[in-house]
Amino acid sequence: MSSRIKGVLSPVVTPFKQDLSVDLERFTAQCRWLQSKHVGLAFLGTNSEANSISPDERMDMIDALIEGDVDPRGMMPGTGACDLPTVVRLTRRAVQSGCAGVLMLPPFYYKGVSDEGLYRYYSEVIQRVGDARLRIYLYHIPPVAQVPITLTLIERLLRDYPEIVAGVKDSSGDWSNTQAMLERFAPAGFDVFAGSETFLLQTLRHGGAGCISATANVNAAAIHALYSHWQEADADARQQKLDTVRQIFQSFPMIPALKAAIAHWSGIGDWSRVRPPLVELDAGQHARLIQQLEAVEFSIALRG
Amino acid sequence: MSSRIKGVLSPVVTPFKQDLSVDLERFTAQCRWLQSKHVGLAFLGTNSEANSISPDERMDMIDALIEGDVDPRGMMPGTGACDLPTVVRLTRRAVQSGCAGVLMLPPFYYKGVSDEGLYRYYSEVIQRVGDARLRIYLYHIPPVAQVPITLTLIERLLRDYPEIVAGVKDSSGDWSNTQAMLERFAPAGFDVFAGSETFLLQTLRHGGAGCISATANVNAAAIHALYSHWQEADADARQQKLDTVRQIFQSFPMIPALKAAIAHWSGIGDWSRVRPPLVELDAGQHARLIQQLEAVEFSIALRG
Repeated sequence: MSSRIKGVLSPVVTPFKQDLSVDLERFTAQCRWLQSKHVGLAFLGTNSEANSISPDERMDMIDALIEGDVDPRGMMPGTGACDLPTVVRLTRRAVQSGCAGVLMLPPFYYKGVSDEGLYRYYSEVIQRVGDARLRIYLYHIPPVAQVPITLTLIERLLRDYPEIVAGVKDSSGDWSNTQAMLERFAPAGFDVFAGSETFLLQTLRHGGAGCISATANVNAAAIHALYSHWQEADADARQQKLDTVRQIFQSFPMIPALKAAIAHWSGIGDWSRVRPPLVELDAGQHARLIQQLEAVEFSIALRG
Repeated sequence: MSSRIKGVLSPVVTPFKQDLSVDLERFTAQCRWLQSKHVGLAFLGTNSEANSISPDERMDMIDALIEGDVDPRGMMPGTGACDLPTVVRLTRRAVQSGCAGVLMLPPFYYKGVSDEGLYRYYSEVIQRVGDARLRIYLYHIPPVAQVPITLTLIERLLRDYPEIVAGVKDSSGDWSNTQAMLERFAPAGFDVFAGSETFLLQTLRHGGAGCISATANVNAAAIHALYSHWQEADADARQQKLDTVRQIFQSFPMIPALKAAIAHWSGIGDWSRVRPPLVELDAGQHARLIQQLEAVEFSIALRG
């Protein structure tokens, strides 16, 4: 974990077989395809249904990519969990596999917990993993986790673990919060990732590291193109086109919509499957999604 | 799982050793003590820090009680998890161990999920466990899980699994919701447990099954006495005394306060330990808690 991961990362959606088990082969192929589009693998994230997947299965997914010769330097798996033994176990495996970093949710069952308690949690994980190669990206997603990563918490963790606490993914959807993180911590080398490409250009203009975005599952090349060309004259136009596609996906339940689009353009219906408590799009939603995407000339080239 | 569990149950607080591992011996002894007070064991609940304990550790806790000859007919372990494989694994073990039932949280990571998704989740668990002895108590605790168990969901589950979906624990803190559950489902034999003894008398007067309450960890005998004597003249006076003790505990962070009280009256300081993200009471809080409890002549007789 010596060189820092930057750019556009995708919380890779997880393919399930008919019995709801993880389709490791299809998952590995999807990760290879994303890497071919220069997109990093933030697999086992929120959009991967990571918390609907057991710790053992999550271990198997890390192992499958490594055994499938997917480059771990492009990987930032989610290893967060409500309990310490699980997060330590997953994180240790990620570090030993050579992953560039790990994306770590706060423990999200108890609400209203203190920064002191969250500090102890992260600190305990770092000490138990006990590996200087560890790079943690804190995962701030208050609309889902309900437990925030505050600026005060980041400050304290950075003071005590300046190398290991490497960055943050801000999925608050609140640009003023992303901006505050950028202003306070980016100058010292802390990598701030926007939680969606909606804020990619703004984030890069304020010294951020990139974005980790659901729609990088389906719009990988175009999002990466903005990352590569953000200092050029057409950057705002590129951002606007990304926003149009994003808004369509956002008007449906996001995870089922991502999977429906992949199912449609791959011709593999199995891709639309989700684990409960999520529910796949119904036929009407599916048709409207594809129609709206085609109206903006969007499609996914899943081969090549 | 033939005869239904009723009465007062305790979400048993979990003792941790200095390295934060579960102290199985102390845990077993505590469960024996609670059973001697006629209190059922809803261990691995919210107040047990269940979600701060890994699936493997939770399995070990079920096994430890069985191996320690604690009567499984008095047990209703929490087996809920965000992922299906874990909840199925834990639930299967509980059923095979002869537990009276299991208390099952909804999957609590994703927010705003549909009743359809929650129905599929519970239905999938029931089918995968595939054991007619299974008795599920749905766990409605919106202030923490943020994902509610609605009346509509209960109705649908009861229609399709009338034997297996056996009851609910209502920790909403909203009496009108408990009352609605009692009115709609109790007459058909659905067991409604109040989420705290605050509503015990009201619940019993409306045909409920009892309560599953944090403070049953520390006030077991008195809460059970109300359950046994609720039709007698002094029931309201008993309820009032319970409320006084409850209010003291509620004015502190509940789990650390329960553990601090047990630590105080057992003389075993280790009892105050919690896992992050929770934080134990500080010295001032600890002193105030004990002082307030002593002022109402409260104490815990942990022996005999």
